[in-house]
Amino acid sequence: MATAGLSALLLTTEPEVRYFTGFLTRFWESPTRPWFVIVPASGPPVAVIPSIGAALMEQTWIKDIRTWSAPNPGDDGLTLLAGTLREIVPQGETIGCPDGIETHIRMPLADLTRLGGMIDRRQIAGDKGILRRLRMIKSQAEIAKIETACAIAGRAFARVPEIATAGTPLDQVFRRFQMLCLDEGADWVPYLAGGAGPGGYPDVISPARPAPLKAGDVLMLDTGLVWDGYFCDFDRNWSVGAATEPVRSAHRRLVEACDAAFDLARPGATAADLFHAMNSVLSQGGAGTDAGRLGHGLGMSLTEWPSLIAADDTVLEPGMVLTLEPGIETEGGIMVHEEDILITAGAPRYLSPRTGPEVATL
Amino acid sequence: MATAGLSALLLTTEPEVRYFTGFLTRFWESPTRPWFVIVPASGPPVAVIPSIGAALMEQTWIKDIRTWSAPNPGDDGLTLLAGTLREIVPQGETIGCPDGIETHIRMPLADLTRLGGMIDRRQIAGDKGILRRLRMIKSQAEIAKIETACAIAGRAFARVPEIATAGTPLDQVFRRFQMLCLDEGADWVPYLAGGAGPGGYPDVISPARPAPLKAGDVLMLDTGLVWDGYFCDFDRNWSVGAATEPVRSAHRRLVEACDAAFDLARPGATAADLFHAMNSVLSQGGAGTDAGRLGHGLGMSLTEWPSLIAADDTVLEPGMVLTLEPGIETEGGIMVHEEDILITAGAPRYLSPRTGPEVATL
Repeated sequence: MATAGLSALLLTTEPEVRYFTGFLTRFWESPTRPWFVIVPASGPPVAVIPSIGAALMEQTWIKDIRTWSAPNPGDDGLTLLAGTLREIVPQGETIGCPDGIETHIRMPLADLTRLGGMIDRRQIAGDKGILRRLRMIKSQAEIAKIETACAIAGRAFARVPEIATAGTPLDQVFRRFQMLCLDEGADWVPYLAGGAGPGGYPDVISPARPAPLKAGDVLMLDTGLVWDGYFCDFDRNWSVGAATEPVRSAHRRLVEACDAAFDLARPGATAADLFHAMNSVLSQGGAGTDAGRLGHGLGMSLTEWPSLIAADDTVLEPGMVLTLEPGIETEGGIMVHEEDILITAGAPRYLSPRTGPEVATL
Repeated sequence: MATAGLSALLLTTEPEVRYFTGFLTRFWESPTRPWFVIVPASGPPVAVIPSIGAALMEQTWIKDIRTWSAPNPGDDGLTLLAGTLREIVPQGETIGCPDGIETHIRMPLADLTRLGGMIDRRQIAGDKGILRRLRMIKSQAEIAKIETACAIAGRAFARVPEIATAGTPLDQVFRRFQMLCLDEGADWVPYLAGGAGPGGYPDVISPARPAPLKAGDVLMLDTGLVWDGYFCDFDRNWSVGAATEPVRSAHRRLVEACDAAFDLARPGATAADLFHAMNSVLSQGGAGTDAGRLGHGLGMSLTEWPSLIAADDTVLEPGMVLTLEPGIETEGGIMVHEEDILITAGAPRYLSPRTGPEVATL
């Protein structure tokens, strides 16, 4: 913060608040109430939160917890927040909010504007990427949680033959797969996407429809399940019945692309290097997809910095957790493959149970 | 919009985008990419979205879909968005963004600031509550979806004796209950909270811990499950073994509070009237809780306007869906009860299967 010219950070979103406090609740699903944590350049963090969260916040290491009865249409914590900022931050100094790519401010825009007029010669600016840099490097405890989430998903994926076969409606596969994730130990399943179709699927973000799986379909399931507040994010593909040669070939190429990135994924390489390694394998097989990137960071959120794209020159460091997510156009649409890896001081390590080159069959 | 002096709405969040387009995907779980929909005062809506969403958006009624390859750290859709706004909105006119309570802008703050300088004598202001007023009144199709979600949760709650008894760890109850919700037809289970403890629970937003249920505990589960993009949000309480008289009495009082609000819940009454009706029943039994309100709107989000608080004078209208959610302090902590109701032209209607006054036992 000293380098960035900031006297405090003002945080408003779930992962930002949890990163500093350990405050873990699914209550953020409710968009009603704003929550604030102030991290001063020196001194302990201060939580300025709705009173409904006080009992749970008191179980964290945060001692200075200030609450208001929310929602309050006339003053939804704003007077309390502004007073706290005036107390903590000297006049003339600057408060940093995450403002860059992959961030947003979770409070009403009218209140954010009003706040600017209530903090008396203090100003709000960006955080100069402080949160991004902190959250990109995971601690051993964070890595262990992500690895547990990956193992749970791995066991659930291994049981997909129990729930999916020719004739099973895709929406039923989605429901049953989420049940497998929970049965194997997921706390909850915030994300499941996928698709099915002959020789490929149309996209990777659609909700499931009731159309039954047919012989010759490729089924893909991509899950972000949570264990103790941390995500995994990887997918698996299956051919319903024997796979055609184009599907087998596409799957082999996707795994080959992952391998190419994996081989490079050491400290000093960049996110762009991994993109190019995958992209050069994929482009030998035809066109890429519209996904916009070939992988990303992973942790408290399903997707985080960096992005595996040509324009991201983030240098890899030990403790980064990345997904490798190559996609390829096929005769039937697209196919996508995804694994989760950890950057270490030496060779990387798979956190998801690595898939072999041959596509599985149902 | 004409009344509000607006030439277009600019929308950035999942429910706002889906409300006008029907674009339904769990991909919003990824915070990486911004998504934009512009609703002009006249003419069709325009989607300005990452290319990964194009195939799915093309399946909606939206015809004008403009995409960029996201994420792009240098220009994450901003040039495309600004150009579209300049094309649609005449110079000197105003673009409205939802900016009031229970809203936020889902795009990086730095980009929002930059956008203001890229739209050439057009300005961004609040939406004057347009989205709030629209979304508060549900159509018949929306009501049917919420009712289906409520019925699914009702069937799952009825099966809780299958999964919870003295000795069952609470985190296992949470996992198994989510499996029941999926088994009964939920598409996914974005929200589950609850608690357990002797004679009451400490709060209603904590994640589950592995402590086993004990005889004398009160168990509460509160779920927001989704069916076809719409939520239910209600809870149930159980006594593990025979309930003590204080627990039975607290449960009766909570149901009595719901009944008092239900009896008043007709067009012309206000959100505050329902609050006072519940609060006067509750205050006969001692102190309230820190929840901040005694119910709220429900629909595409787990919680929506209005709030059942003294300060919310929103007048009830047919088509509003509300939760009645009284809470009460007990010897062991708190107890909360919640039901979902529909405001009609006449008497309201329960969407959740109404609970009787006697607390259930496990």
